[in-house]
Amino acid sequence: VQERWAISGVDLHLDLRGPRVRAGLEAALRDAIASGRLQPGTRLPSSRGLAADLGIARNTVADAYGQLAAEGWLAALQGSGTRVAGRTVEPVPPTASQEESAIRFRYDLRAGSPDLAAFPRSSWLAASRRALRGAPYRSLDYTDPRGLPELREALAAYLARTRGVHVSSDRVLVCTGFTQGFGLLCDVLRARGARTIALEQYLQPGIVDIATARGLRITTLPVDAHGAAIDRLGPADAVLLTAAHQFPLGVPLAAGRRAQVVEWARRRGALIIEDDYDGEFRYDRHPLGALQALAPELVVYAGTASKTLAPGVRLAWLVVPEPIVGELVQAKIRADRNSSAFDQLTLAELIRSDAYDRQVRRARLAYRRRRDRLALTLQRRAPHVRIRGIAAGLHALLELPAGTDEGEIISRAARRGLALEGLGDYAASCDIRGETPALVVGYAKPPEHAFTAAVGRLVAALTGD
Amino acid sequence: VQERWAISGVDLHLDLRGPRVRAGLEAALRDAIASGRLQPGTRLPSSRGLAADLGIARNTVADAYGQLAAEGWLAALQGSGTRVAGRTVEPVPPTASQEESAIRFRYDLRAGSPDLAAFPRSSWLAASRRALRGAPYRSLDYTDPRGLPELREALAAYLARTRGVHVSSDRVLVCTGFTQGFGLLCDVLRARGARTIALEQYLQPGIVDIATARGLRITTLPVDAHGAAIDRLGPADAVLLTAAHQFPLGVPLAAGRRAQVVEWARRRGALIIEDDYDGEFRYDRHPLGALQALAPELVVYAGTASKTLAPGVRLAWLVVPEPIVGELVQAKIRADRNSSAFDQLTLAELIRSDAYDRQVRRARLAYRRRRDRLALTLQRRAPHVRIRGIAAGLHALLELPAGTDEGEIISRAARRGLALEGLGDYAASCDIRGETPALVVGYAKPPEHAFTAAVGRLVAALTGD
Repeated sequence: VQERWAISGVDLHLDLRGPRVRAGLEAALRDAIASGRLQPGTRLPSSRGLAADLGIARNTVADAYGQLAAEGWLAALQGSGTRVAGRTVEPVPPTASQEESAIRFRYDLRAGSPDLAAFPRSSWLAASRRALRGAPYRSLDYTDPRGLPELREALAAYLARTRGVHVSSDRVLVCTGFTQGFGLLCDVLRARGARTIALEQYLQPGIVDIATARGLRITTLPVDAHGAAIDRLGPADAVLLTAAHQFPLGVPLAAGRRAQVVEWARRRGALIIEDDYDGEFRYDRHPLGALQALAPELVVYAGTASKTLAPGVRLAWLVVPEPIVGELVQAKIRADRNSSAFDQLTLAELIRSDAYDRQVRRARLAYRRRRDRLALTLQRRAPHVRIRGIAAGLHALLELPAGTDEGEIISRAARRGLALEGLGDYAASCDIRGETPALVVGYAKPPEHAFTAAVGRLVAALTGD
Repeated sequence: VQERWAISGVDLHLDLRGPRVRAGLEAALRDAIASGRLQPGTRLPSSRGLAADLGIARNTVADAYGQLAAEGWLAALQGSGTRVAGRTVEPVPPTASQEESAIRFRYDLRAGSPDLAAFPRSSWLAASRRALRGAPYRSLDYTDPRGLPELREALAAYLARTRGVHVSSDRVLVCTGFTQGFGLLCDVLRARGARTIALEQYLQPGIVDIATARGLRITTLPVDAHGAAIDRLGPADAVLLTAAHQFPLGVPLAAGRRAQVVEWARRRGALIIEDDYDGEFRYDRHPLGALQALAPELVVYAGTASKTLAPGVRLAWLVVPEPIVGELVQAKIRADRNSSAFDQLTLAELIRSDAYDRQVRRARLAYRRRRDRLALTLQRRAPHVRIRGIAAGLHALLELPAGTDEGEIISRAARRGLALEGLGDYAASCDIRGETPALVVGYAKPPEHAFTAAVGRLVAALTGD
């Protein structure tokens, strides 16, 4: 009896002992509920099913359920079986900043995410169905640490076609977001004896922490109208650049500086990491091809699905020089062995079927319109604010008049239910905070229906209305 | 024209210059194909669509396509548009051991994976559809680093119910497989000043590497018929135990030793990590509850979907003592911020809808039958081999007569197309290899139709037939 109990209905974990089966069943259930092992709301097997599994009379189970319902342990609901009674699962206290802010802020213009309400759920589900039906069962096992071949091949063709990347699928490494990819590169750099990595003076938060946790020292590069100041690189062993569209300042790395950084890397035997986080989104002209194509043996190209689809996809990709493929594979094995097979298969199918291109195109048109509307609104209603950087990407830098207190604007916005961040929030170190008062506005983030209202609140915060 | 080109059809990356549009288009396409940026097989936009996007006559595009097809650059196929001609994408040279072995071995009895041909694809897709349709769009953003609340709540109820874990959803941390979870714990231990972690003398490959890469020293515990020798723990700062079913030896940690290890951890202020990798699979009796319930303030409980569903799901979970939640969250943020939103939402829905329980139950029955068949076959046809350990899990330890050379059996199996591993492959250090000649047989792995043949080859390798 015990043996079959363990495999019955929902998978209960009860000790069923004692001479009388019904009393034993009741006691075991009471104990499981009292100890919290059976939580309120948990559905129990039907009395018929449980009786069959236990090889006892159905009435015995029904009587035990009835007794416990009478005692208040269980609730027998018409037509929906028997459940553990009491309050439903307690709400989790929100601790993550995102969840908190969803409660505190009705509008959100912080940078970093695309419009998630526009995520193509139907295309994703359809691609997922096609991909999973067609995939060999080995795709669901531990697989090639570089990623599933289906995805690496689709990415290689896509990156060559749209970003001019010099690539073959055997040099693509799929990772669980750019965060992981950058961490793995830091692992490899450290193992190769690197001590210092150069970062742009303003950058994505968290990057400094990832590098220093690996024991790398940081030097920072000022960024001017031509991009990062390559002549300040000095003796670093590697550099991370957002060459197509500096994050968050919004300038591209000038052609002369591209050549200069390649020359520097060649001379020093250093590694360039090109974070092409939003390379698909340029509105004013044909996008510049990837820096990587200039020197595929010196540059790691990094792309991501976080801006084109959603951060929740948790897929990014590195195209790496041949000599470090093996070391990166070892680092990936130690980190998490593989990224999700389902997401990989689905993304490969999305790219192959052109649904990914269509989504990028749709998003590009939508964000371009939003950027134009933002610029026009500011020009009319807050002419003291200047949009800086090229017409590209998912965010804009709003330069404030000298002497303005970013923090004051952000507080005003918060009082109006708008989440906003200042340039200072993206500084690599504290000593450069506040040098240039500016806001980093992620215009892609709000759902379409909330965009106008969000911009209205931004204007109100800027003008003090 | 250029500007619209960038957003046309599939997302091409071409420079279109020169006085004559058709010649310019042809030259740009030739260049892109020659340089490999447009790879063989890539589909081009229709001539109608591209002409409309470029604002030129359709004939101009059609003529350019025709010219390039004539030159052999493009292939115009009836009814399926125009593609870049030439060989299809080159096959990737297989480098991962798994892919190689899929080619070399027709049968596979190595441990570590469930029967992937039995993965419930339809249930997974149905749950995925329901979950994604119902999820708020914020689920697709960067979210709570502990994991989506939907999944943490479902897991908390499931683990309390089936494994007797003492849990609330705010102490659950979802991670990208147990590999990542263990790595994050090593990060936290190092940050807290830990120097040494004790491991079982035989264990999952890769674990030693993860700990030592973080700078932790390793001590190893012998394992006897009562499980790991807790009295040999000494001055370690943490211990990793497979308490329910030692991997790969197959013994459970005896009740006395459970109490002993908790007492040790309390005295030393050390951390116990309980890797409950196959706790759902016990065939001879009701499974032992988790060790964690004895001392939730000292034990991290770790579970995974890799054995119940598939490694490709890449989801595992830790239930952790309250004081280290914050430190683990920081480590998770540095590692990859979040695990896949889609897999999390789908798994939560699978658990909530009882489809997960049904899958576990189905798998348990199937594996139990396989274990019985394996035992019976060996008893009849290779009586010199003894199955050790309890009737549980996805693998069995086959003890060979003293003096047998494991490697010889494994080679014989390989010559018969069967992938097999010896106990030595799971040794924490080289000096204990070969002490006990034995095979670790993962009887869950072959698809159902291949199981009998795989066991037949195993017997042939054991008996030299």
